[in-house]
Formats: sequence, C-alpha cells, structure tokens
Amino acid sequence: MLQLGIIGVGRIGRVHIRGILSGVPGAHIRGIAAPHITEEIEQLARSAGAEILTQDHRALLRDSRIDAVLICSPTSTHADISVEALRAGKHVFCEKPVDLGLVKIQTVIDEAAVSGLKYQVGFNRRFDHNFQALRRAVAEGRIGQVQVVKICSRDSEPPAPKFIPSSGGLFLDMTVHDLDMVRFLSGSEVEEVYAAGSVLVDEAIGRAGDIDTAAVVLRLESGALALIDNSRQAVYGYDQRAEVFGSRGCVSIGNDTPSTAVLSTAGGVTAERPLWFFLERYLPAFQEEVRQFVDAVENDYPVPVGAEDAQKATLLAMACTRSARERRPVRMDEFQSYL
Amino acid sequence: MLQLGIIGVGRIGRVHIRGILSGVPGAHIRGIAAPHITEEIEQLARSAGAEILTQDHRALLRDSRIDAVLICSPTSTHADISVEALRAGKHVFCEKPVDLGLVKIQTVIDEAAVSGLKYQVGFNRRFDHNFQALRRAVAEGRIGQVQVVKICSRDSEPPAPKFIPSSGGLFLDMTVHDLDMVRFLSGSEVEEVYAAGSVLVDEAIGRAGDIDTAAVVLRLESGALALIDNSRQAVYGYDQRAEVFGSRGCVSIGNDTPSTAVLSTAGGVTAERPLWFFLERYLPAFQEEVRQFVDAVENDYPVPVGAEDAQKATLLAMACTRSARERRPVRMDEFQSYL
Amino acid sequence: MLQLGIIGVGRIGRVHIRGILSGVPGAHIRGIAAPHITEEIEQLARSAGAEILTQDHRALLRDSRIDAVLICSPTSTHADISVEALRAGKHVFCEKPVDLGLVKIQTVIDEAAVSGLKYQVGFNRRFDHNFQALRRAVAEGRIGQVQVVKICSRDSEPPAPKFIPSSGGLFLDMTVHDLDMVRFLSGSEVEEVYAAGSVLVDEAIGRAGDIDTAAVVLRLESGALALIDNSRQAVYGYDQRAEVFGSRGCVSIGNDTPSTAVLSTAGGVTAERPLWFFLERYLPAFQEEVRQFVDAVENDYPVPVGAEDAQKATLLAMACTRSARERRPVRMDEFQSYL
Amino acid sequence: MLQLGIIGVGRIGRVHIRGILSGVPGAHIRGIAAPHITEEIEQLARSAGAEILTQDHRALLRDSRIDAVLICSPTSTHADISVEALRAGKHVFCEKPVDLGLVKIQTVIDEAAVSGLKYQVGFNRRFDHNFQALRRAVAEGRIGQVQVVKICSRDSEPPAPKFIPSSGGLFLDMTVHDLDMVRFLSGSEVEEVYAAGSVLVDEAIGRAGDIDTAAVVLRLESGALALIDNSRQAVYGYDQRAEVFGSRGCVSIGNDTPSTAVLSTAGGVTAERPLWFFLERYLPAFQEEVRQFVDAVENDYPVPVGAEDAQKATLLAMACTRSARERRPVRMDEFQSYL
Repeated sequence: MLQLGIIGVGRIGRVHIRGILSGVPGAHIRGIAAPHITEEIEQLARSAGAEILTQDHRALLRDSRIDAVLICSPTSTHADISVEALRAGKHVFCEKPVDLGLVKIQTVIDEAAVSGLKYQVGFNRRFDHNFQALRRAVAEGRIGQVQVVKICSRDSEPPAPKFIPSSGGLFLDMTVHDLDMVRFLSGSEVEEVYAAGSVLVDEAIGRAGDIDTAAVVLRLESGALALIDNSRQAVYGYDQRAEVFGSRGCVSIGNDTPSTAVLSTAGGVTAERPLWFFLERYLPAFQEEVRQFVDAVENDYPVPVGAEDAQKATLLAMACTRSARERRPVRMDEFQSYL
Repeated sequence: MLQLGIIGVGRIGRVHIRGILSGVPGAHIRGIAAPHITEEIEQLARSAGAEILTQDHRALLRDSRIDAVLICSPTSTHADISVEALRAGKHVFCEKPVDLGLVKIQTVIDEAAVSGLKYQVGFNRRFDHNFQALRRAVAEGRIGQVQVVKICSRDSEPPAPKFIPSSGGLFLDMTVHDLDMVRFLSGSEVEEVYAAGSVLVDEAIGRAGDIDTAAVVLRLESGALALIDNSRQAVYGYDQRAEVFGSRGCVSIGNDTPSTAVLSTAGGVTAERPLWFFLERYLPAFQEEVRQFVDAVENDYPVPVGAEDAQKATLLAMACTRSARERRPVRMDEFQSYL
Repeated sequence: MLQLGIIGVGRIGRVHIRGILSGVPGAHIRGIAAPHITEEIEQLARSAGAEILTQDHRALLRDSRIDAVLICSPTSTHADISVEALRAGKHVFCEKPVDLGLVKIQTVIDEAAVSGLKYQVGFNRRFDHNFQALRRAVAEGRIGQVQVVKICSRDSEPPAPKFIPSSGGLFLDMTVHDLDMVRFLSGSEVEEVYAAGSVLVDEAIGRAGDIDTAAVVLRLESGALALIDNSRQAVYGYDQRAEVFGSRGCVSIGNDTPSTAVLSTAGGVTAERPLWFFLERYLPAFQEEVRQFVDAVENDYPVPVGAEDAQKATLLAMACTRSARERRPVRMDEFQSYL
Repeated sequence: MLQLGIIGVGRIGRVHIRGILSGVPGAHIRGIAAPHITEEIEQLARSAGAEILTQDHRALLRDSRIDAVLICSPTSTHADISVEALRAGKHVFCEKPVDLGLVKIQTVIDEAAVSGLKYQVGFNRRFDHNFQALRRAVAEGRIGQVQVVKICSRDSEPPAPKFIPSSGGLFLDMTVHDLDMVRFLSGSEVEEVYAAGSVLVDEAIGRAGDIDTAAVVLRLESGALALIDNSRQAVYGYDQRAEVFGSRGCVSIGNDTPSTAVLSTAGGVTAERPLWFFLERYLPAFQEEVRQFVDAVENDYPVPVGAEDAQKATLLAMACTRSARERRPVRMDEFQSYL
C-alpha cells in the first residue's frame, strides 16, 4: 500500500482525494496538508482515513512512512515544494503547471534527475478515455504515418478578467494542454510555431493584455503539420475535440455528453450538449493519472508524463506567445539555450 | 450517516460496496454478511471500514445500529430475507428479482406495507443516465402524449445453458427489465401482451425449454403500443436502446461506448462498439439507485421503485411466457386474482 | 432506345417522367395518356419530346412502336389496364398497389405469366439507396443468419380522413410497404402475423373505421422474427428506419436529411429533421426502379419485383387487418386458398 | 426560355449539360461547341435537343438567338473567351478559375463591368446543400458573431505529378475553394494569411515544386480567425467539412455518404465512407449554380458569385503561396496594387 500525502485541498486536491478513495486501490492517503484547516477539511480527512492533518506541508515531507506526495497547492508554490519533496525522498505527482517560468522548471527537472525518484506532472488530458483511444489508434498504426494533427479546445466560460494577469496568458494557461497533446498524439517534437490571437469574447480580457481566441499552426520535426484553435467561451459547453490524419486514414474524437438521448421534434433533431465543466469532463482522467503514478512508483515504471514534458509544453506556449506578439513564425531553436 | 448492512458479497454485492464507498456520502457500511468468509472478503470489509463481518445475516438484522440492509444474496433467498429484515425494523434495498413467484412477492409487499419501512427493488436500469434522460423528456412533455414505446435489449453473450432452468426463462430473466421500463417510460399500465419467441442463438437453450430471441407487443391502458425485442447474443456488445414516440416528437437513446473515437479508413468509418458487460454499462446506475434509496430513508421520501413494481413486471413477464407458449395475446386481467 | 408510354400524369406520373428524362438514358417517352389534357400537360409532353399525347390510354396500347407502358393512373384502374396492356403485348411497369383485392391481382399474375412479358410493380422502397445498402449487407452475409428484422415507418402528416375509406386501411395502404420490405430484407416468407392497432393521431380516422398507429410482429418461415411500427404522423418528418440483426452483427439505416449541418447552441446540438415528403425522400428510388425495369426489358432479365411480390405483400396486409380486428395471431396458411 | 451555348464538352461540360436537361427548366441548350466532334458528342447534342453543334465557339457567340454561354473549355482559354463572349453581348457563366493570373482576371472584371451583362464564376461549392445550410445558419444569426471559421478539405486521390506544373500549385488549385468559402461563410474580407506546407503524400509532387499538405491561418478584417487544412490524399474518401464558431454557438457540416447504413459487428460500428469523387459529391451543386445563373439573367438579379470573387480568392491563394515560400505571414495589402 503506497502511503500518500496530499499537499493542498482546493478544488483539484479534493478531486484527487475522492478519486483515490474510489478507484486507486493500491494507495492510502496517510496525510493531508492545508494552510487553513476548516471543519469541512477535518471531515474530509476523517472520511479519507488520513492519520495526519497538518497546516505545514513539511510535516508530511518529514513523515518517513509517506512514500509520495501529490502537490495540489497554488501554482506559484509548485516548483519549490517539488524540490523540497524530492530532497525529502518523496516521489512527486505535481499538478500542472510546474511553473510559469523555465528556470524553475529546469531546477525541478535537475532535482528529479539526481534524486532517482518518480516525478509526474498532471497533464490529465493524456489520461482521458477519448484522447487515450486517439493515441492508441495512432500508436497502433491504424492511420499510417501522421500528417496532420488538429485540436479544438474551447472553454465553456471565460475566466474572470482579474484572473488573467496571473494566468500567464491564453497560450500558457489553455493552449499549453493542446500543445502537449500535439506532442503526445503525434509522437513528434515541434520545429516551428505560428500563432494568431484575437479578442472576441470579452474586451476586458483584451484590456488585461491577453487574447481570448487563438489559431495556431505547428510544423513538426516529422514534417507533419498541426492546427489548434482555442476560445475562452463556447456557449454550448466545454468543447474538446481532436483529429489525427495520416497516410492510411484519420481518427477523431468528439465530446462527451450527459446521455445519448436524442429528441426529434418539429424544431429539429437535438442531442445533448457537451459536458459543461472541465472537472466533470475529465474526472476519470484525474483518477487515472494518479493510478498510473502509483503504478509507476510501486513497479518502478517510468512515469507516463514527466517534468521534461511540462518544460516542452511551456516552451511551446512561450513560442506561441512570442509568435502572436511579434506576428511571425517562431522556430523552437530560438529557445535552444533553455534546453 | 445511515448505517448499512450488506447481505451477500457476490458480484453485485461488491458493486454496491464499491459504489457506496466512492459516491454515497451519507451512508456508512457498518456490517457485511457472507456465508463463506475468504481472505479477500476480509480485506474488502476492512477497506470498507465495516465494523462487522459475519457469516450470519441475522447478526446484522439484530444490530440495532444498522438502519438498512442491501440484500445481494442469491435470488431464492431474497423474499425470505426481505421479510426477516422488515420484521427486524430495517429498511430494505433488495436486488431484483424479489422472487420468481407471485405469492412470495405478495408476502413481501404486505410486510413492507404494514412495516412502514422503505422497501426498494434493484431495477437499476431506471437509474441509468440514458433511461433517466428518456424518462425526463417524456415527463416534461417534450414529445407530447406517448403513442409508441420501443425497447431493444440484447445481451452481449448468452448464458450457459445450465443456467437456463433456474432463470425463469427469457421473459422473467431478461424481458422483465424491459417490461418495467415500458411502465417507467410510458407512465401507463399494460392491458394486453403478445409475445413471440424463437431459438436462433443456441440450440441448447431450446433443449433446456427456453427461447433466446423474442418479440413482444404490448397494448397499454393509455392506448399506446409498445414493442420489445430481445436477443441473448449480440456479437457487437451489450445493446440497450429505447425510443418513445408521441404526438409532439420522439426521443431515443443509443448505446454507451468506451470512447467517442471514430476511425476513417479505406474500409469505412468505424466507431467503438457498445460497452460489453452489463456491470460496466450500468455501474453508475447501481450507485445511483443506492444513493436514492439512502435519500428516501434519510428524508422519508417514497422509494423510487418498490415491491409493487417488481410484482407488476413479474406479472407482465409471466403473461409474456403464457402468450408465447399458447400463441395468443394475453390480457393482464387474466392475472387479476394476483392483484 | 426503349419506347415508353406513360398512362396517367398525376403526381407520380410526373415524377416518373422527370426521372426518365434526367436519368434513364436507354428510354424515350413516346406517348402520354391523360384523361384531361391541360395546357400544363401539353407543355410537359413537349418538353419530354413525346410524339403522342392522348386522352385514351388504348391509343398507346395500339401503337406498335411503344414497347412498354408505365401505369400511373388511379389505383382502381391498375389491374384492368395491366391486363389490357399485357394483351396488347406491352411490357408493364405498374404503380402499387396492383389492386386492393386478391382476385384481380391473381388475374394480373396469370396474364403476365402467359404473356411472357415483363411485369414490374412499383415497390419503390426496394430501390432506395438506404434499403439497398441494408439488403446488400444482409445478402453479403455481413450479419450472418438473419434473426430479427425491425422496420419503423411513420408518415410526416396523416391523410385527410375522407381518403381513409378508399385507402384499404392502414395495413394495406402503409404497412404493405414494410411487409414487402421484411420479405426483401430477410429473404424469407412469413408464417404468422400479429398486429395491434390504435387510434392516437386523429379520432376522425377512427370514426372512418381505421387505425393510425400500429405494431406488428411477424414470425418468418426461417424462424426469424420481425417487428414493424407505424404511425400516420411524425411531426419531425417522414421517419423511415430499419434494422436487420443476425448471428454476426446488425445493420441499420437512418433517415436522410437536407444537409449534414449540426448547430450547437446553449439549447443543444441540433441536426436537421428527416426529409418531410415521401416523394422527396424516395425521388432517386422512383428513377432507379424504372431504370431497372428498362434494363430488365432490354436485356431480358427478370424484373426485380413482380406481381407475386405485390400479391404476397397484400396477403400479409390482409392478415394484419384480420389479426388486428380479431385480436389474435393469424397464420398465413389461413390464406392458402389464394396462393 | 433562356437559350444557352455550351463551350467545351469535357468532363465538366457534360456535367452541366446533364444538369440543365434534368433540372434547369427555364433553359434550353441551343448550341454546343467542341474543338473535336466525336460521334459521342453528336449523340449528346441530339439528346440535348441542341440545334447547333460546331467546332468554333465563335459560331455560338455570333448566333443572335443565344442569350448566354457556359465556358467549360480549358482553363487557359477562360479569360479570352469570357471577353469575347461579353463583347458579343452574351451573359457568361465561366468555370473556375477565370485565370491563374491577376491581369487577365482584371480584364474580365472590367469587361463585365462595362458590358452590363451577367458574369458568374463556377465556385460550385457555394451552392452545395451542406455549405448552403452552413451559410444560412450564419446569415440568420444562429451562432451570433463569427469568431472562428474552420475548413477541412482533402482530396480522395492525389493528381498525377505531371498535372502539377500547370495547376498553379496546391494553394491556387485546391485551397482557392476553401479561401472563397472563408469569405462566403464569414461575410468578411481577409487581412492577413499564414500558410505552411509539407510534402507528405507523394515525393514526386515535391519534386515538381509543389506541396501536398497544407495548414493555413487567416486573420479576417472582422477580427475573426480562420483555419484551413488540406491534403491531396484521404484514403477514406473526399473529405469536405467545415465549421463556423461564434458568440452564440457553432455550426458544422460533415461529409455526404452513399447511404445511412451502419454495420455493427465484433469489429466495430461502421458507417459508410464519404463519397469518393468530387463530381459525385457536388453534382447537385453544379446544377444549382446554373439554375441560379439562369435566374439571375432572366430576372436581372445580381449573380451569386462574380469575377471579383474569383479575383479575391486568387489573390488569397497567391498570398498563401508567398507565405509558404517566404515562411512569414503575408498581409493582403501587399497586393493592394492589384485591387
């Protein structure tokens, strides 16, 4: 039984706790750290069977019976706690992003490398049943050689404008998932990116210096091309589709819906909208990534997605940001010094 | 916190235990009864946090801290344990069928009536997200007045022929769910049934005196008509579809699949098969029915599906059996003496 | 170039003329007969390049250069004109139904048999691209041995009640197509029918002695079962679906729509309604059946659907009528004397 | 009755002749011009009822009874014949492209302007039922303000490499349709294009100096973004999809298929492939564009798509070519001198 410590019990921390309890049989939540312990958190800890509930995450890192920690604290603390945890000998599952800056990500990569411990990053979308099926079809050669990857990712609701300044901008906050997905699906690194952005959803986002709509073209090292389109607001729900096209065919995934019900009336033939909320849409993926993390630790497998993947996705998002700002394609070797 | 006792930890009992742990927050499993306690069951009880593990289900019935029991033992014991539990003052959730015979079902109905306790039957399909969406559309008047109900229910794999004699036959074992669904979806009782059967899947099923393929027409009291078709074997997976047609439109549900992936190749455009196994297909429904049972007990709501529903579905299945055997439509008032 | 005479230029006659002009290259319309010749009909004849326009269909039968006639006159005249035409040595394509009575159909069958000429009946649905694809899949063994056939056929709008008395009733007017389709798809004859009807759409239909909603179960000689459901009114459009299920799989067809457009909004994900009007839905089928008729004549192939098929479908519709009236299953050997 | 002359009876000329005969009631084909008159063409002319069959297209231009001509001759002759025809007082429907060079297109625009005659260009895709439905949804405001347009266009089979040099390259030969479609669907002009190309399908195409796979991002004057992806080869069929996303929703179109048949087997749930051949896919659109041209002439309506549209699409294709070659976004005002 792998003994886990959970650092941070905000929205995503709770998702992980619930997921572990209901479907990660080889793991036990030994301790939970939260800066402010409310009655609700106490109850959560009890129902999770956690022996330790502490305000100080270092208490978990010092506990020799804890094997691994899940870092679910605010983004700005991810990298520092990652390093602390690795130095304390704990395997680490860290929510994404590891950091918005490349220097700190590099520090984590280095620390993980010397530690010999597992370090997994929470790119949950890789563990989603649809994206998994897409990847599997590609990996099994069903579509031959990959020629075009397309990803459509649209949020159901835009973030509050006040969230924008700390978000890193649309490319680092949102497109970063799609950029990771291009790498995951194609099995190829990226050579060059071109990104165009626009403010069409909410002018306040524009005033905050960001964009809310984007189109990206990637030239992959394999010669394949990729297209991404993003929007901060799709009024019909969280829109998560992708397609990989190749020499022998094409595989695509659509959205998940609450049910398969289809209503035919004088007004048309109407199916359900996509699931609205990203946590609902990706709930099983949040569980699956932890399951695989536990597996990797228990059996000394490589983690399915590591700090280098986070670094690469971040670099790509930075290249998109630069491309959109400077209105030119950006070659990834401009960022060579970071690699 | 509602204190539950689980009686029987075969396949379905385990499904309920897992379901309660992961998603029925208001309930605690206080005790588990199993005739043969293996190490695996001991571990299950521990992980469930159950204080009691016993070979004697009556130990649970005697425990004054247990509020309600889930009866997941073999079919032949359902009715007797139901009566015992009700007499012991426990609310009861009983797996279907309550019994294959009408006399025992009546005894349970009577006992439940005098007890004033909750008695819910495990017609899980009513709690499925698809069937719920279908029912909701009908109940909200989206299709106007119900005119035709159609249900297609096909198992992925036929039962072993040796299972046939104790099954009650296809209509009692399989169609009974669809018959309940006709009542649930239409909101109407049935006036007359006509059933035709055939042996097309496995001759051994025929030799065991049963059929493996059936077509049923129901005339409802509302004037609406219903059609059911069943097969013991659909090689492409567990096929669970339904449609309700009315004066203002039509609503239908299709199958659930492992993913939304669609592969286009020179050979065609191929989507995934329906989920294969009924436990996988209806897993969330098994959880939802218990959640609603717990709700009904906690808040003194009526149970969503009671022993009378089991009785009516059983009568309908018996009428189908008689219709197929005697090759004539059978009016439900032939069974009046049972009601 | 096959020289054709068209007898009757009502709605269906015009459909055939247009179809021949645009897509039956081996045929020329030499003559047209219409009881009342309007200016519009004169123009139609001109644009068709027809040398003859006459009020007397016998003028076409006497014309030695005419090889074949299409009988598109009112139903009550079909059988008599069929016999006249065959006696005049013309190949015949006759719109369905050949007659509502079995005696006259038999006369036509006999006359066609002795004549050695081609006699095709307008069961257009057999030539529809969807039903053809369905049949092809079955014939190629894609689903193995046929076990269940299901047909859903719903008109978009009910007929005017005054039309009911001369229609022969729902089973002869509407279900007859579906009964033919069961034979076509399954490749099997029918042993027994059970039909239930209801008046749910329009009480005036009931007052006229007919039903507007029906459910039919057929037991085929092969052991397979078939289910048909009919309604006189589907407010969302002309609903024409079918499914054949077998030992190795299942093949189904859905409705055709004006476009593939799908609109996703806050209200749902809405596709187009099925095509509304049967002539629009089956337009290419009306052309294809004549194309194959011309082929059969030119190359002395057997016609794809003959008078015996009309007879058998009519018998099945009569058996349904009897079944619904007498509320019992009807074996087809009750009609043995007609065969 | 509008009197038409058809200039050129290659593949596309024949499609138009057939289309006019079967479904453009207000038009008569008075003359046909073909450089080499075969027996097959003589028969075609006869069956079309054409009074004139000539090797010299000027014979048609001199015929005072001819109102309009359809120019279906080789691309290199389009512009010259257009000018001749306009000077001869004929309305013109000209197959696309008007010319591969901007100078000649401008000449045609100027000539059409001074002539006061109708001049329509054969951007057939605008008349396709799916693209029409898409445009209609946008024009009716169903999706609110347009934010993103996406077009996926893939040929089923690549052209022979020897065709490449005269094709103008992928952007002028293939993407030009999609670029026109972006303008048509969005109702906005384009400000800037970025195009990336790759040789992934056939190296011989690369050796001929062209690409076979492309990804394009357009920045529209409205602020909206557009994405196009093209491939010269989709092994599953001619892939023609599009989507427009806006502030109130999203509308998309999929491919047309030979039937709605879906086969469920142990291997999956398989629908038909998209239609394979562009002439089959767009056949009704070829007819519809001529129908609207005839309408425009008869009723003096503006033509639905004119020489300026051809010019703009050509400019956009040239900008894509430049962008891909110079690896930079290209602003449309670089081409200002042409406008």
